[in-house]
Amino acid sequence: MLTDMDISSRASLKNITELGTDLGLLPEEMMLFGHTKAKVELSVLQRLAGQRKGKLIIVTAVTPTPHGEGKTVTSIGLTQSLNAIGQKACACIRQPSMGPVFGVKGGAAGGGYAQVVPMQEMNLHLTGDIHAVSSAHNLGAAAIAARLFHEARLGKAEFEAQSGQAFLAIDPKEIRWHRVVDHNDRSLRQIQVGLGDNNGPEYGSSFDITAASELMAILALSHDLADLRARIGRLVLALNTQGQVITADDLGVAGAMTAIMADAIKPTLMQTLNGSPCLIHSGPFANIAHGNSSIIADDIALRLADFVVTEGGFGSDMGFEKFCNIKVRQSGQAPAAAVLVTTLKALKANSGLVSEADSNVSNIHVPNISATNSNALDKARLEAGFANLNWHINNVARYGVPVVVAINRFATDSDAELQWLTEAVNASAAFGCEISDAFSQGEAGAIALAQTVVRAAETKSQFKLLYPDEASLEAKLSTLAEVGYGAKGVSLSIEAKQQAQQLTALGYGHLPLCMAKTPLSISHDPSLKGVPKDFVVPVRELVLHAGAGFITALVGNVMTMPGLGLKPGYLKIDIDAKGEIVGLG
Amino acid sequence: MLTDMDISSRASLKNITELGTDLGLLPEEMMLFGHTKAKVELSVLQRLAGQRKGKLIIVTAVTPTPHGEGKTVTSIGLTQSLNAIGQKACACIRQPSMGPVFGVKGGAAGGGYAQVVPMQEMNLHLTGDIHAVSSAHNLGAAAIAARLFHEARLGKAEFEAQSGQAFLAIDPKEIRWHRVVDHNDRSLRQIQVGLGDNNGPEYGSSFDITAASELMAILALSHDLADLRARIGRLVLALNTQGQVITADDLGVAGAMTAIMADAIKPTLMQTLNGSPCLIHSGPFANIAHGNSSIIADDIALRLADFVVTEGGFGSDMGFEKFCNIKVRQSGQAPAAAVLVTTLKALKANSGLVSEADSNVSNIHVPNISATNSNALDKARLEAGFANLNWHINNVARYGVPVVVAINRFATDSDAELQWLTEAVNASAAFGCEISDAFSQGEAGAIALAQTVVRAAETKSQFKLLYPDEASLEAKLSTLAEVGYGAKGVSLSIEAKQQAQQLTALGYGHLPLCMAKTPLSISHDPSLKGVPKDFVVPVRELVLHAGAGFITALVGNVMTMPGLGLKPGYLKIDIDAKGEIVGLG
Repeated sequence: MLTDMDISSRASLKNITELGTDLGLLPEEMMLFGHTKAKVELSVLQRLAGQRKGKLIIVTAVTPTPHGEGKTVTSIGLTQSLNAIGQKACACIRQPSMGPVFGVKGGAAGGGYAQVVPMQEMNLHLTGDIHAVSSAHNLGAAAIAARLFHEARLGKAEFEAQSGQAFLAIDPKEIRWHRVVDHNDRSLRQIQVGLGDNNGPEYGSSFDITAASELMAILALSHDLADLRARIGRLVLALNTQGQVITADDLGVAGAMTAIMADAIKPTLMQTLNGSPCLIHSGPFANIAHGNSSIIADDIALRLADFVVTEGGFGSDMGFEKFCNIKVRQSGQAPAAAVLVTTLKALKANSGLVSEADSNVSNIHVPNISATNSNALDKARLEAGFANLNWHINNVARYGVPVVVAINRFATDSDAELQWLTEAVNASAAFGCEISDAFSQGEAGAIALAQTVVRAAETKSQFKLLYPDEASLEAKLSTLAEVGYGAKGVSLSIEAKQQAQQLTALGYGHLPLCMAKTPLSISHDPSLKGVPKDFVVPVRELVLHAGAGFITALVGNVMTMPGLGLKPGYLKIDIDAKGEIVGLG
Repeated sequence: MLTDMDISSRASLKNITELGTDLGLLPEEMMLFGHTKAKVELSVLQRLAGQRKGKLIIVTAVTPTPHGEGKTVTSIGLTQSLNAIGQKACACIRQPSMGPVFGVKGGAAGGGYAQVVPMQEMNLHLTGDIHAVSSAHNLGAAAIAARLFHEARLGKAEFEAQSGQAFLAIDPKEIRWHRVVDHNDRSLRQIQVGLGDNNGPEYGSSFDITAASELMAILALSHDLADLRARIGRLVLALNTQGQVITADDLGVAGAMTAIMADAIKPTLMQTLNGSPCLIHSGPFANIAHGNSSIIADDIALRLADFVVTEGGFGSDMGFEKFCNIKVRQSGQAPAAAVLVTTLKALKANSGLVSEADSNVSNIHVPNISATNSNALDKARLEAGFANLNWHINNVARYGVPVVVAINRFATDSDAELQWLTEAVNASAAFGCEISDAFSQGEAGAIALAQTVVRAAETKSQFKLLYPDEASLEAKLSTLAEVGYGAKGVSLSIEAKQQAQQLTALGYGHLPLCMAKTPLSISHDPSLKGVPKDFVVPVRELVLHAGAGFITALVGNVMTMPGLGLKPGYLKIDIDAKGEIVGLG
């Protein structure tokens, strides 16, 4: 069997300028980066301001499992098949983080015959946006450290006299802006900086992976460069010794941070294996941030295509919920339909009837269905797993969005089980259910899915947010827990309660909440599988993201810097005798 | 007066593909990055393998001063003027580090009417090479930390059984590979990493600015991608508990580090203000590394142009010496002539007759020459300063290279003093002396310089290295100190002596030395101005750079991570209402 990389490297690619021209871009609106990538100039938005907009399709999934549900494969495959049936379709997806490419797995550009190509361009630097985010972020951190150093060295009067800048009195214990790097490096999770002579003051710091930077969320949520500049200016970098916020504008570093990101705000055009256009832009985490591609990329694509396919991170309780309550709230662009991806394996792994050890085994059919009895059903697990799927169907429907279930078929799937599942979905609130073979068959593999999605998008959807801006922060948290997850309620720590009051008093009470919880359960507890009940969501802390425009609610421990495993992905990566990169996937 | 940025943004640029075609590149050998930059594919080297090569001109300078001597301005200006007089000329210069752009000054793309344009492209991300070096470097650091973590967690038997990799027993106190970031951030000079639960082991680490990464020196010295891969494989990342070296190949991370740099090995083509071609590539420091642009860029340019102008960092005791003894030793490409840049201000600042406070004043003419007596000579300082210049003239001549002195004229310079200096140079061992007005007049300002350089390059130069490979490390150090700087001798610390023995025993005795000393004096002591005598150069430590292929001798404290000053450059940088970056220079 061919690897993803083999398939990618054998693909014959369209000229990227021609691809962009076919999509409706002018040559001067494309800034080439090599032969296979072009950044799209934002001037296109002015040119097409009056244009009617296409339909936005959001791809989401059941509760994620270690097997991978294939959300990106389905998004790419659906885009390919929409074009194959004569619709003009464009995918809008996130840029993969480079860290995990060298860590867990080979790549994140889809897979099989539903890929963005060349996959090594997509998986490595792309057009440098993540590097720009890292650099802008770390300039902010360097600015704080330098200001601390000079203010401590000179004292207020001398500092102000010599520097011509106001004394900020930053509290080294209240620094809210640390560092980022686009690698998995657990040794940087907690560090002490400013050691040694004349490098101080010493303070505790940390590195997150770049995808966790608030700048990445800002990149995804900005409407244009001026909006990016304004949001960066509002970033809260630290508190002063009086407890007042110090912003990037206070430090005078917001302009330079924006300058570093001036090209990063332009989405990158690439293509899928069948030559469908794909805009790749931003890559915010789906736990501490909202986990969707950018408003700008969607906006450009919607003015050029009939259908724009985008995806939310993790399950519908996470990426889809945030897509709605954070991104759509800021963009005003509601989806016309949703695709909910599941697999038979995911169903069983989410059943709660698989031991943790078994759920990590790649083929969890084996203990239940023997090769000699291919018509047998693993009924107990299917039914319990379907409850999880059905919860996600209803969760999407709650937002007034028609939902099509896509069963991403694996080669080992049993036809009898696929049939059982299709029937179960067809009896649910879902608009429809289709099996997708996009991975193994490319554009031919998701024709039925594409057709059903087109029909779903033609229904009159009535999008609604889960909560209004004007609800109190505590009320929003209750709604998210009770309606969003089916919890009995929410409990705020004393700290979180105080923060809710403070943030409201400071005028941030209107912001939406971004729930930083485990993706591995609909609840806050990763051990609760299926459809958890009778749980209370504990909110530990509220963190203001004034630039991104949301407040993150920390529920449990959320990892913002992954580590490298025992057999990291980099072991296989090299260049071959021809100078080509090998081992990426 | 127009700023550098004003001049840059008003320039009318040639189409970069046409510029490359005029230089002799095929369209398929250029990988466009936006509208003004193109990476050059290394396949051009095979195509032109049999081509005759042009002449290499190395630009160096007197001992650097706070006023700036204008080495890059002169390099760009000379290239422009060579083209203006009908020679086919190309500049090969280093990529500026982004950190200092936000720190000290606006930019490093030349200045006035001798600039690489657009200067903001040159000064910010360019084509991402520095980001790639940072990323590759930090992947190596993450790999060490992860290996330490897993080996400590599992112990030898379990680690080997579970991972299928050999137990390396890295000594956390002997890690030789830390982190880099392309910012000025003194708080990262000395840090402690691996703090907190389950992130360990804890160890002392540090961040250098990316220009100080050995990978940057490797990028500059590699002959092709296979050579880059081999050099990265040889990198010494740590010692094990037995004191044996652990390389990047031992860790299995060299292939992935190379993959990250697979595009960075391709030089970037830009243009100067008069449309002369300029290859920009790599940016190694000139203290702990060799401070020159890349062998690959020179090699490409020499096959396409009659004259290739490149520059060495700092004064001739630093960048030029290393250009000869490290780069030419590895490339085999000797220079046909050298240009030695000086200014009247530099002469006086190097005289030893200016107080330290005065030497930082922008106009050090004032105390000596009144506006009413413009023919007066500041003779004592001129003569003492000329001794420094004359030392550099003789230093270059020592390598058998004809040297042309370029006096970079400032608006406030006195004609009488310029005349005095020209006569003094003409009586020296220099091939010639010309005044350059490249800053204020562009291509018209360095015509005479270009003509004299052409004549100098026509002389039969007889390049010779300062020391042979087979000299012992201690003999090389003595030669560098005594012949290279005019010292009485060299004194090695006990540690350095042991290291010299160890490195020789390990088979590294044939490598050239890279002297990491202050650039602010010909000696090791920045307070010794003019032509220091009777000093002994103290060598504290020898550091093997097995990948770059040299041994760095640490003489005094060399800063590998700058800090941000009281009024950092970023304060002025922003985007304007049109979305253009402003305040870069």
